[in-house]
Amino acid sequence: MKSYLVYTILLLILGTLFSFTEKDPIEKQATWIWYPGDYEIWLSNKMQARRTERGAFLPPLWRYYSPYALVTFRKEIDLPEDDEIEIKTEGDFKLQIDGDLVHGRPKKLAIPAGKHSIVIKVYNQEAVPSVYIKGKHLRTDASWKVTFEDKEWIDETGKASDQSGTFWEAVGSWNFDSAESLPSEFRLETTPQYAVEVKEAGDGILVDYGKETFGYVKFHGLRGAGKVSLYYGESEAEAMDKEFCETLDHLEFDGSQEEDYQLEGSMAYRYVQIQHDPTISFDSVSMMYEYLPVTYRGEFRSSDDLLNEIWDVSAYTMHLNTREFFLDGIKRDRWIWSGDAYQSYLMNYYLFFDNPSVTRTLLALRGKEPITSHLNTIMDYSFYWFIGIYDYYLYSGDEEFIKNFYPRMVSLMKFCLGRRNEEGMMEGLPGDWIFIDWADGLSKMGEVSFEQMLLARSLEAMAISANIAGDKKGEEEYGKMASDLKKKLFDVFWSEEHQAIMHQRVEGEVLDNVTRYANMFGIFFDYFSEEQKLAVKQNVLLNDDVQKITTPYMRFYELEALCAMGEQEFVLAEIRDYWGGMLELGATSFWEKYDPTESGEEHLEMYGRPYGKSLCHAWGASPIYLFGKYYLGVKPLTAGYQTYEIVPELGGLEWMEGKVPTPEGDISIFANNREIKVKADSGQGTLRFKSRSKPRSQSGNIRSLGNNAYEMDIQSGKEYLVNYRVIK
Amino acid sequence: MKSYLVYTILLLILGTLFSFTEKDPIEKQATWIWYPGDYEIWLSNKMQARRTERGAFLPPLWRYYSPYALVTFRKEIDLPEDDEIEIKTEGDFKLQIDGDLVHGRPKKLAIPAGKHSIVIKVYNQEAVPSVYIKGKHLRTDASWKVTFEDKEWIDETGKASDQSGTFWEAVGSWNFDSAESLPSEFRLETTPQYAVEVKEAGDGILVDYGKETFGYVKFHGLRGAGKVSLYYGESEAEAMDKEFCETLDHLEFDGSQEEDYQLEGSMAYRYVQIQHDPTISFDSVSMMYEYLPVTYRGEFRSSDDLLNEIWDVSAYTMHLNTREFFLDGIKRDRWIWSGDAYQSYLMNYYLFFDNPSVTRTLLALRGKEPITSHLNTIMDYSFYWFIGIYDYYLYSGDEEFIKNFYPRMVSLMKFCLGRRNEEGMMEGLPGDWIFIDWADGLSKMGEVSFEQMLLARSLEAMAISANIAGDKKGEEEYGKMASDLKKKLFDVFWSEEHQAIMHQRVEGEVLDNVTRYANMFGIFFDYFSEEQKLAVKQNVLLNDDVQKITTPYMRFYELEALCAMGEQEFVLAEIRDYWGGMLELGATSFWEKYDPTESGEEHLEMYGRPYGKSLCHAWGASPIYLFGKYYLGVKPLTAGYQTYEIVPELGGLEWMEGKVPTPEGDISIFANNREIKVKADSGQGTLRFKSRSKPRSQSGNIRSLGNNAYEMDIQSGKEYLVNYRVIK
Repeated sequence: MKSYLVYTILLLILGTLFSFTEKDPIEKQATWIWYPGDYEIWLSNKMQARRTERGAFLPPLWRYYSPYALVTFRKEIDLPEDDEIEIKTEGDFKLQIDGDLVHGRPKKLAIPAGKHSIVIKVYNQEAVPSVYIKGKHLRTDASWKVTFEDKEWIDETGKASDQSGTFWEAVGSWNFDSAESLPSEFRLETTPQYAVEVKEAGDGILVDYGKETFGYVKFHGLRGAGKVSLYYGESEAEAMDKEFCETLDHLEFDGSQEEDYQLEGSMAYRYVQIQHDPTISFDSVSMMYEYLPVTYRGEFRSSDDLLNEIWDVSAYTMHLNTREFFLDGIKRDRWIWSGDAYQSYLMNYYLFFDNPSVTRTLLALRGKEPITSHLNTIMDYSFYWFIGIYDYYLYSGDEEFIKNFYPRMVSLMKFCLGRRNEEGMMEGLPGDWIFIDWADGLSKMGEVSFEQMLLARSLEAMAISANIAGDKKGEEEYGKMASDLKKKLFDVFWSEEHQAIMHQRVEGEVLDNVTRYANMFGIFFDYFSEEQKLAVKQNVLLNDDVQKITTPYMRFYELEALCAMGEQEFVLAEIRDYWGGMLELGATSFWEKYDPTESGEEHLEMYGRPYGKSLCHAWGASPIYLFGKYYLGVKPLTAGYQTYEIVPELGGLEWMEGKVPTPEGDISIFANNREIKVKADSGQGTLRFKSRSKPRSQSGNIRSLGNNAYEMDIQSGKEYLVNYRVIK
Repeated sequence: MKSYLVYTILLLILGTLFSFTEKDPIEKQATWIWYPGDYEIWLSNKMQARRTERGAFLPPLWRYYSPYALVTFRKEIDLPEDDEIEIKTEGDFKLQIDGDLVHGRPKKLAIPAGKHSIVIKVYNQEAVPSVYIKGKHLRTDASWKVTFEDKEWIDETGKASDQSGTFWEAVGSWNFDSAESLPSEFRLETTPQYAVEVKEAGDGILVDYGKETFGYVKFHGLRGAGKVSLYYGESEAEAMDKEFCETLDHLEFDGSQEEDYQLEGSMAYRYVQIQHDPTISFDSVSMMYEYLPVTYRGEFRSSDDLLNEIWDVSAYTMHLNTREFFLDGIKRDRWIWSGDAYQSYLMNYYLFFDNPSVTRTLLALRGKEPITSHLNTIMDYSFYWFIGIYDYYLYSGDEEFIKNFYPRMVSLMKFCLGRRNEEGMMEGLPGDWIFIDWADGLSKMGEVSFEQMLLARSLEAMAISANIAGDKKGEEEYGKMASDLKKKLFDVFWSEEHQAIMHQRVEGEVLDNVTRYANMFGIFFDYFSEEQKLAVKQNVLLNDDVQKITTPYMRFYELEALCAMGEQEFVLAEIRDYWGGMLELGATSFWEKYDPTESGEEHLEMYGRPYGKSLCHAWGASPIYLFGKYYLGVKPLTAGYQTYEIVPELGGLEWMEGKVPTPEGDISIFANNREIKVKADSGQGTLRFKSRSKPRSQSGNIRSLGNNAYEMDIQSGKEYLVNYRVIK
């Protein structure tokens, strides 16, 4: 008992000094662990290789990274009593306890009380080397360390050498918390779904699931030998077009199949046309809907039913695209694009607040060393990765992620900075794809202001992360680079004449071209003076002479910029028009692109293909983000919602109510023309609003800011009610 | 016909301009291709993970690299007629012909005559993505290109972008020349072998195969359920020692096994002790001997039967260690060590001349980017890799290998050069293992002269390779670094007092310590003046006060240095003593270490373990190299034996004869006291010898060099006979 007490005290003292030392083992759950990021790389390789096009295999156009096939896990522990551990690995393993090799491959092992060094090396060429150990005290969890290179050698006498050159990192893990839940066998959840209508189609049938869905078609009572073809469609037209539908399956049965036969591959569709040989018959067709189990934590309801439907369909669109990773679109694409994922991160904070989906996607995108090109080969997409981390930290407050992956931020930034021109600006080099947006005639030549602005924000993300990772020198250097670049951005691209940021400089000359991109981002990045902001709003955002945005991708930022400028009413009208327009056309999920001037099957075309357009695209779900951040008006001011603000804006609605998720609980808001009600589960908030008469509250202290503006402190756990008069 | 003629002429003109253009397709064999080096990485990962120790899994202590899981192969071809190709891949594939996606995954495809661009992307997470295409004209072979990052993207209109940033490399291949011989299913050959003696051992048996061997134990007529244990031994003592034998297998049968049961794992042993439950019975035990099929091209016979036996046992030792890769030892080790492999490369040139075994091993050792430590974590072992390429080029003349892998030479050299101290010298940094040799009290502190010498030779290898790869700047820079370092080596370490290179400098001070290492290498690297050479021979090589070499590893170089100094007779006596000593003790293959002062089972100990010593170690086979290079006296003077010299040295033997393999044929030599006969299949040779009276030849022109030395030109295809009188 005495020695246990001493041990406890020692632990309290040493705990902060030795990060390897287990602090409170019994409370922690055992979980499968691996080399950080490697599981995400492996799983994303697998997932992205499931894309097909008319039966052809269609893997990503960018490079794949690989997990390390051989890694060494390590744990220093002081066991207060004898322990017995259960050992399970994916791959063959070598276990050393206190430097001694354990012979055989034991599944259970007794370890005596006392201090021990546990080292387990796991080899797996096919999947990710991973380990699960569960004892009473010794358990695999996030406190373990891992290396891909343990540099352990022995000299002639059998003495082990030092490992001073070995870099030990924090392990990766997710939610594989039992010995049986093998990481390599991960599958999304499934649940049965049934057709709402089955019609005859030629010699076969057309099955309609009533809305966009994703899953495995399942035959019931399938008998006989012969061929079966499935033609999938997000639209009826697509499913009925055998020649041009984007996805299909050709199956062949020899009669030995199970009568309840489920397809191996999971597809996205609303309609399925099924044709089969007369030698084949089946009783019915259903499907197994496949999804990531996440909770809809964000909520939004208002006096406008159309907006409510838009929110619901946006949430469903977002959920369909939130899978192993954040997808861009579910039918055709099924890859991970950094620019698209960036918007999903933001929407996620107002819907699921599922951090693992963000970090999985960030890690899959980043891959590992060495970097030989931009993420997805796109310059802007490298920057969105940094900015995604900037936001992730702000919303989640997750410092561990940044500490663990800061080296990968540094190396990607080094790659980017190494590609600047003599002026210190980013300009496309061979192999760089400058994307920005799908827009007719959009020039990507020379130094594009938009790219410099993204780099500036990325450098700010680096400075913040350097601070978290304890890299003081990096913090200073990145901070200085960011402010230098911001200054240069305005020196070069700000036009007094146009009162806007110009689009580009080519061979030293700023071209007479204004686009919306840098101008919108400058607003919500808060890079403009108040005066500039107003000028940009008038001269760019609300100026129809500047080329219009046609993609929901950039529409996301345009509407955000307008909201940030207080144009909530204008934006609501746009949302009713644009998203409402899709619903009018029968959309059950939101599209990759919508042009109200098109008609009929024109809506389905894209990339020169009749059904090339994705009718379920993550970036179509942006109302979730806009409603949460700019109508319910909630956003964090410091990391992890330790402080936050609530700025409800009805934008002309009679009333609205909803919830915004935070790391610990939710923030609930109700507002109409006369009342605002808020309640938060944690953090320190500030409610800001305008009122045309003096507002009143019995639950809090309202401070007047002048000019009809007021604010009030919001403490967690308490309900607040404010009586006010909205300014119309 | 006309267009074909034009095509042919065009090809002749363009052939040198466009390396992608197929020149002579029909003559070439179709073969499986992959990303260069990736198959070697994958296969070596697999092979090295087969090491076990008393049933425990024992993977390497250094890092593993991984193949790229997704690669793109490319071929530009102009088909003179319609072709039909057969397509087979390891992994899923996407095929594009002239930019168009081929739907489905066709196994056969017709391609019309004319110019085509063939692009095939292959994904394989578990093994190496590889492809085999066989048509009449279009066939996968070494002329294809490959990249792990094709940077192919499309814009909104479906137009493919340029790939100016894509780096296309020459594919890798080996000898998988049919569609059915899948690279992932590669296995060494096997052939049955039978015991020479079976004895009772307790309740079980002891099987003796008569000599060291490697393979799968096989039971015949195995019946019943229960446990069987196998204890392997290179010595009878080891096999009989259940507690301490290094390798063993515990099997369990439920009665459902095949009666002819072969073990899954292949082991190295001479003896196997087998114990089993009484519920188990079997009729007999044999084994499947497992080996790499290579030809014994080198030969050596002499008037001394002991030397002949030493050569035979050396050749067998070498063959046992020449497997998927060059191993250091077959029982315990089964990993690939660069320093050990380096000696195997040299021995290989005088026995198998199997280039693929050299390049496979070089590629497995090198891995890919990024480099985070020395090869096998050992500083000297990085350098042996470069020197191995220096020699490989000299012996094989294989410029393609250097052209293809020069970038990996550059990056490893960059890693090494980045670890020099302020003096520009290599000194151990954290994580660096300075090996040099197993020797009591050998200091590795500070700047060790031996390491600087290896770096100097490595830089020379870089300069030569830069020239071959067309990197003029590199050639110049590496050349200058090499000569600067050689100068510094002598300025700092050459002691006028000791007339030798000193061992080390620590904190600016050269210590009073002479070792053999740098002094022996300086001789056969030809870094000394003639005067220095003679001094080093007297003051170091033949000086018993300088710590003696005890490992056959460094003994290899010591004997080579002595041979290079004309001490063939002295060296023969050493060989008879050292290798003869092992034969005297019953060796059937040569050992990791032999100390004549030890006795009995002391010979089996090492690393503090009673059977820790390897009794079949590649470095034990050095007589093959010495006999070929310094007695038969054959070595290339320019790359690929275009020119070479033959300097037969009897070293006191009455006669000797043998063959030395070259890239195109052999060189045959016979010599006794009065006659020298030589014949070469290719190249331009020079025969050099000494004679105490004027030699005569009717087959060639003998030139006198004075001082009893003579030389004669040797043309290929002709037999030469010289009559001379040996100088005793």
